[in-house]
Amino acid sequence: PLIAILAGDGIGPEVTAEARRVLDTLGLDLTYEEGLVGGAAYKAAGHPLPPETLDLARRADAILFGAVGDPDCDALERQFRPEQAILGLRKDLGLFANLRPAKLFAGLEDASALRPEIARSIDMVIVRELTGDVYFGAKGIRTTADGLREGHDEMRYDETEIARIARVGFETARTRKGKLLSVDKANVLETSQLWRDVVIEVSADYPDVTLSHMYVDNAAMQLVRNPGQFDVIVTGNLFGDILSDEASMCAGSIGMLPSAALNGSNKGMYEPIHGSAPDIAGQGKANPCAAILSAAMMLRHSLDLPEAADRIEVAVAAAILGGARTPDLGGTLSTRDMGDAVLANLV
Amino acid sequence: PLIAILAGDGIGPEVTAEARRVLDTLGLDLTYEEGLVGGAAYKAAGHPLPPETLDLARRADAILFGAVGDPDCDALERQFRPEQAILGLRKDLGLFANLRPAKLFAGLEDASALRPEIARSIDMVIVRELTGDVYFGAKGIRTTADGLREGHDEMRYDETEIARIARVGFETARTRKGKLLSVDKANVLETSQLWRDVVIEVSADYPDVTLSHMYVDNAAMQLVRNPGQFDVIVTGNLFGDILSDEASMCAGSIGMLPSAALNGSNKGMYEPIHGSAPDIAGQGKANPCAAILSAAMMLRHSLDLPEAADRIEVAVAAAILGGARTPDLGGTLSTRDMGDAVLANLV
Ligand SMILES: CC(C)[C@H](C(=O)O)[C@@H](O)C(=O)O
Ligand SMILES: CC(C)[C@H](C(=O)O)[C@@H](O)C(=O)O
Repeated sequence: PLIAILAGDGIGPEVTAEARRVLDTLGLDLTYEEGLVGGAAYKAAGHPLPPETLDLARRADAILFGAVGDPDCDALERQFRPEQAILGLRKDLGLFANLRPAKLFAGLEDASALRPEIARSIDMVIVRELTGDVYFGAKGIRTTADGLREGHDEMRYDETEIARIARVGFETARTRKGKLLSVDKANVLETSQLWRDVVIEVSADYPDVTLSHMYVDNAAMQLVRNPGQFDVIVTGNLFGDILSDEASMCAGSIGMLPSAALNGSNKGMYEPIHGSAPDIAGQGKANPCAAILSAAMMLRHSLDLPEAADRIEVAVAAAILGGARTPDLGGTLSTRDMGDAVLANLV
Repeated sequence: PLIAILAGDGIGPEVTAEARRVLDTLGLDLTYEEGLVGGAAYKAAGHPLPPETLDLARRADAILFGAVGDPDCDALERQFRPEQAILGLRKDLGLFANLRPAKLFAGLEDASALRPEIARSIDMVIVRELTGDVYFGAKGIRTTADGLREGHDEMRYDETEIARIARVGFETARTRKGKLLSVDKANVLETSQLWRDVVIEVSADYPDVTLSHMYVDNAAMQLVRNPGQFDVIVTGNLFGDILSDEASMCAGSIGMLPSAALNGSNKGMYEPIHGSAPDIAGQGKANPCAAILSAAMMLRHSLDLPEAADRIEVAVAAAILGGARTPDLGGTLSTRDMGDAVLANLV
C-alpha cells in the first residue's frame, strides 16, 4: 500500500516523523511518498494544496497528515490559507466521515480541567459529517435591496448524505456499547428535522443499537456536566466541529488525540487533532502521540491491519502509564524521546 | 411601568412567584399583568403564543418570563410547540440582544464539573445576537433534481444587524474589564467574514475596548480549558446558543443564572436560563434564584433602577454564601424557603 505523507507546517513534520518511525518498526509492507501541503506548500508552490499533492493524495491508499497553519499566511485571501488544503482534500476525496475519539489516558487524570472523577469517565467517539452542511453550501457576500452588505451561507443536507453518515454512526456504536446519540437542532432548523427523520429511518436496520437524540446546546452542556454518559455521537459538520473540540478538551491533553476522515471505501486521511503550534515548532518539544495514534487509526481503518493498530495503541498507553511525558503533559521528554518511549513499549 | 408576567410551564410559575415576591418587597411602582404562554397556552387557547399574550407583551415595559416546555406537546407540529413562543416573542419585539452572564457564586465551587480553582475564575457575559442568523433565514425541505429530500436553512446577517449587536458587546465590555472577544467561523463562513469585518469597523468607535477574535471551535475548547480568560464575548445566534449553554454549565448550577433579551429601546424579556423541568414541577423543589436574578436584570436594563437591581443581586449572593440551598444545590430548602432566604438578606 502507498501512504501519502503530508507533514505540513509547524510541528507537523516533527510529529509525523515519529509516527513514521513507529510504522517502520512494525515491518509492514508500506511505501511512502511525501507531498507539500499548507503554508509550506503555499510558500514553495503558490497554493496550499498544489496539483502534485492532490494527485498523490488521490493515488495513495491512505494519507498521514501532520498539521497546517502558518502565521505568515494569516493575511492571505481565504483561498490561499493553509486550512483550505484540509477542506479541499476532504471534498475532493469524498472523506465524509470524521471519526474523533476522545478519551482520557490512564495516568493523565490531572491534565483535564474537569474534576478527575468526571474526566476519568470520558471514552467516546464523535462521528462528524465532513463534506456537507453550511461548510459547502452556496455562500458569499451580496448586496441587499437597501444597499447593505449581507453575508450568507446555506446549511443543507440531502437524505443520502445523512443516511451514509448515520450508518457510520450505527456501525461504530455496534463495535462499542451499542448506544448512538444523534445531535441536531431540530427545534429550529429544517436541516436538523430532516437529519432526525433520516437517522430514525436508518435505525430500522440497526435494531441492536439504541438510538437517542439531543439538541446541540444541551449536548454542549452535557459534555461538561457528565461526559461519561456518551459512547458514540453522530452529528453534522458544524456541530461536530464545535462539539468534538469541546470533547477533546474535556479529555485533557489534546496532544494525545488522533482523528480519521474516511470515504466510503476505506480510504482515509489521518491527522492529530492538534494544530501546527508555530510557537514550539522545530524545538523538539511537541508530543508525537496524537500523530502516532493517527497512524494506528490508519492501520485499522484503511489497511485492515487491526492487530498492528492494537500494538501501537497499547504501546502509547503503556508509555504514558510508565510516566513518559512531553512538556504539554508536564514532563521534559523531547518529541524523539517520546517516540523512543513508545517504541520501547511495543510488544 | 407595566410588567408582563409570562410564567409558562413546569416550574415556571413557582420560580416566577418568588421573583414577584422579591419585587413586591422593594416597594417599586410596578403593575403586573399575567399572560398565558407555552404548553399552558396551547392547552388553554390552542397556540403557544396567543394573540392576547402577544398584545400584552407589546404593551408591557418589560416581560418577566418563567419557562416553557411540556412533554405533552413534544409530538405537536413545530409551530405549536412551546419553544416557538420564545422565538415568536424575540422576533416580534425585536429583542436582538441576549445578555447571558455566567459566573460562579461564592460557596458553590463544588457545583461545577470543573476543578474548583478553574471554576472560581468564571465571570463573563455572553452577548448573543437573537433575531437573525440561521434561526430566521429562508428554510424548508425541498426536493433535489434527483428526487431526494433536502433540508436547507440559510445563515445570514447584514451589516446593520452585526453592527448593532457589536455595539452592545462594546458597551457591555466598557462596563466591565474593557475586553471584547468576537467569536465566529471566518475560516469557513462568509457570514462570519462579514461579521468580523463589521465588528472591526465598529471597534473604531470604542478605542478604549480591546477587541480580539476567536473561531467557535477554539472558543468551545477554551471555555473548558481556561474560562477565566473571558470577560465579554459577542457572537451570533447559533454559536451563542451553544457557547452560552456550555459556559453556564462550566459555572455549575444553572439554577442560578438569569438572562435578558433586549431591543434597541430598553424593552426586554427576562428569563432564567434553565428550562421548565417537568420532572420536579409543582413540588416546590425548584431553585428560584435564576428567576429572582432575572427580575434584577429587568430592573437594571428596562426600568433604570440599578440600585434596586444591586439589592437583589447582593441578597442572592448573601443567601447562598449563608448556606441557603435548594435540592439542585445539594440542600433541602423549598422554592419558597429559598425566596425567604433571599428576602431575609435584602438590605
Ligand atoms: C481548519 C478548519 C477549516 C477545520 C474545520 O472547521 O473543519 C478544523 O477546525 C477541523 O475541525 O478540522
Ligand atoms: C428553545 C430554543 C429555540 C432556544 C434557542 O435555541 O434559542 C433556547 O435554546 C435558548 O437558548 O433560548
